[in-house]
Amino acid sequence: MRIAVVGAGALGLYYGAMLQRSGVDVCFLLRRDYQAINTSGLQVRSVNGDFYLAQVKACRAPAEIGAVDLVIVGLKTFSNDQMIELVRPLVGSETAILTLQNGLGNEELLAEAFGPERVLGGIAFLCSNRGEPGVVHHLGEGRIRLGEFRAGLTPRSDKLALLFKEAGVPCEAVADVRRARWEKLVWNIPFNGLSALLGQDVTDILTCSHTRKLVRELMLDVIAGANAQGLSKEIDGTKFSEQMITFTDGMDHYRPSMQIDREEGRPLELEAIFAIPLQRAAAAGTTMPRVDMLYRLLASGEKI
Amino acid sequence: MRIAVVGAGALGLYYGAMLQRSGVDVCFLLRRDYQAINTSGLQVRSVNGDFYLAQVKACRAPAEIGAVDLVIVGLKTFSNDQMIELVRPLVGSETAILTLQNGLGNEELLAEAFGPERVLGGIAFLCSNRGEPGVVHHLGEGRIRLGEFRAGLTPRSDKLALLFKEAGVPCEAVADVRRARWEKLVWNIPFNGLSALLGQDVTDILTCSHTRKLVRELMLDVIAGANAQGLSKEIDGTKFSEQMITFTDGMDHYRPSMQIDREEGRPLELEAIFAIPLQRAAAAGTTMPRVDMLYRLLASGEKI
Repeated sequence: MRIAVVGAGALGLYYGAMLQRSGVDVCFLLRRDYQAINTSGLQVRSVNGDFYLAQVKACRAPAEIGAVDLVIVGLKTFSNDQMIELVRPLVGSETAILTLQNGLGNEELLAEAFGPERVLGGIAFLCSNRGEPGVVHHLGEGRIRLGEFRAGLTPRSDKLALLFKEAGVPCEAVADVRRARWEKLVWNIPFNGLSALLGQDVTDILTCSHTRKLVRELMLDVIAGANAQGLSKEIDGTKFSEQMITFTDGMDHYRPSMQIDREEGRPLELEAIFAIPLQRAAAAGTTMPRVDMLYRLLASGEKI
Repeated sequence: MRIAVVGAGALGLYYGAMLQRSGVDVCFLLRRDYQAINTSGLQVRSVNGDFYLAQVKACRAPAEIGAVDLVIVGLKTFSNDQMIELVRPLVGSETAILTLQNGLGNEELLAEAFGPERVLGGIAFLCSNRGEPGVVHHLGEGRIRLGEFRAGLTPRSDKLALLFKEAGVPCEAVADVRRARWEKLVWNIPFNGLSALLGQDVTDILTCSHTRKLVRELMLDVIAGANAQGLSKEIDGTKFSEQMITFTDGMDHYRPSMQIDREEGRPLELEAIFAIPLQRAAAAGTTMPRVDMLYRLLASGEKI
C-alpha cells in the first residue's frame, strides 16, 4: 500500500512517521521541512518513546509522487484553497482520500472535486507540535476515529482503521463520521477559540472559574447545534461536556493549535472550526449565540 | 458655594476646572498631579478652546479641605473601597454628594454611608484623558445628566444643573437617574468591554462588520436588562441602539477609558460596569448572555 501525506505539519508528520515505521510505503509532500528531512531524516519525540526515520521519501510537488492508494490530508484548513490542486496528481482510479483536518467542510470539498465515493473523514485526538525542521513532538493522545463520507461502515474503513492500529495508533472506524466531527467541535470550539483569543492554554482556561464556565456554555451551544443536524444518535449535553472537561483537566498546560497559530502570526482555522458549523446550525434552524460571539471576536482580531 | 472634587482623574480635573473658571470655589483632592498642579497650575486642552488656571486649591488629604457644600466624586470605581473614607471629612450637615462615576452601585455605597438624602448621581458623556501631570485633555462632548438618588426633580437637582450650565457644561436634571445610568451602560458595556478585550478603539470596532454586529447585540442585551428594572419609561431597543451607534460613528478613533486602563496596566471597572448590572438583571429575572460572556472574558484576562 502506497500512501501520500499532504500537509505535513505536526499531525501529518506524526501519523506518516508512525505508518512508515510499521512498514507502510509513505511519501511526504513537504515545504518547510523538506531540506531538513531530505538531508537528515525525521525525528519523532514522543511520550510513547522517541524514534528516528533515517530514510524518508520527501517531495516538494505532488507530481513527483503520482497516484497512490491513499492520500492522507493534514493541511491546515486555511490552506484549503490549495488542497484540490495538491491532491489531484495523487489520485488514480482506485485512490481513497482521508482528511484528518479540523472542523467541517473538508470532506465536501474533496467529494466535489474527486467524487464522494473516494472520501473518508478522520478525527484526530492528537496533542502534537512541530519543533525545528525535521523534528515533530508528540505530547499525548493520538487516537483517530474515521469513517466514510457517505456514512456506514465499509471494508475500506475497517481496513484503514486496522492499518493505523497496526502502526500503533489507536483507531476506530465509525459509521457516522459527521457525528464524530461535531463531537470533536465540542472540544475545538471552546478550547481553540478561548486559547487564541485570550492567549491562555487549556489549564489556564480551566483554572479560572469565569472561563471554565464559558467552556461549559460554549460546549452546550455546540451540542445543541450538533443535535439539530439529524445525527445517528443525539449527544447527551450534560454528560458529554462533563467528560470533555474532565479529559482536558488531565492535560498539563496544553496549547491548542489555534493559540499557537495566533502566537506565531499564522491565519486561524476560523472557517472550518467556526463559520461552517455556525452556518450548519443556522441551516438546521438553531443558533449557537456564544459560539457566534467567540467567532466574531476572533475574526475581528484577524483583520487588524 | 464650596466644592470638593474627589478622584481627580481626567473627569474630575475637567469638570472641576470648568466650575472654577466660572467663579466657583473648588478644592481638588489630588494624588498623581498634586506636585505639578500646586507648582504650575492646571492646563485644560479642550476642543472648545484651551484654558489655564494658575491658582488651584490642591490638597493631598480630605481633612485639609473640611466640610463643603458639594462633593463631586470622580474616582475610578475600582478604588471604591477608599471612597467613603475620602469623602467623610468633606461632609457637613448640609453637604450634598454627586457621583459622576461609571456604572452602577456608586450612589448606593454613598447613600449607605452618608444617608440617601445627600446623594445625587450624574452621568457624564465626556471624552477626555490625562496628559502629563497638570494637563487634562478634553477631546469632545462633556454633557452631564444628573438626578437625586431618591428620584424625582428637586430644587437641589435643578440648582446643580444650573451650576454646571453656567460653567459651560451642558447639564440636565432628570427625575429617574437610574434610567439614565442604564442608558449610559448601553454605550459603556459594548465599547468599554470590546475595546479593552480586543485592544481596538471605537472606530476599529464599528468598521469591522463582526464587531459592529456584536455592539448591537450587546446593546440589545443591556436594554433588555434595563427594561426589566421597572424604570420610569422603557428604552426602545431598536431606536436607542441605532442612535448610540450613529453617535459613536461620529467619534474619530476614540479610545474608551477601559481600553486605556488595560493598556496602562490599571485594574478595569468591571464591578460597576459589568458585575453589578448583571446582578441587577438576574435579580429582575432576566439574563444578558452576551454581556455575561464579555464580562467573563475580561475578568479572566485580569487574573493573569
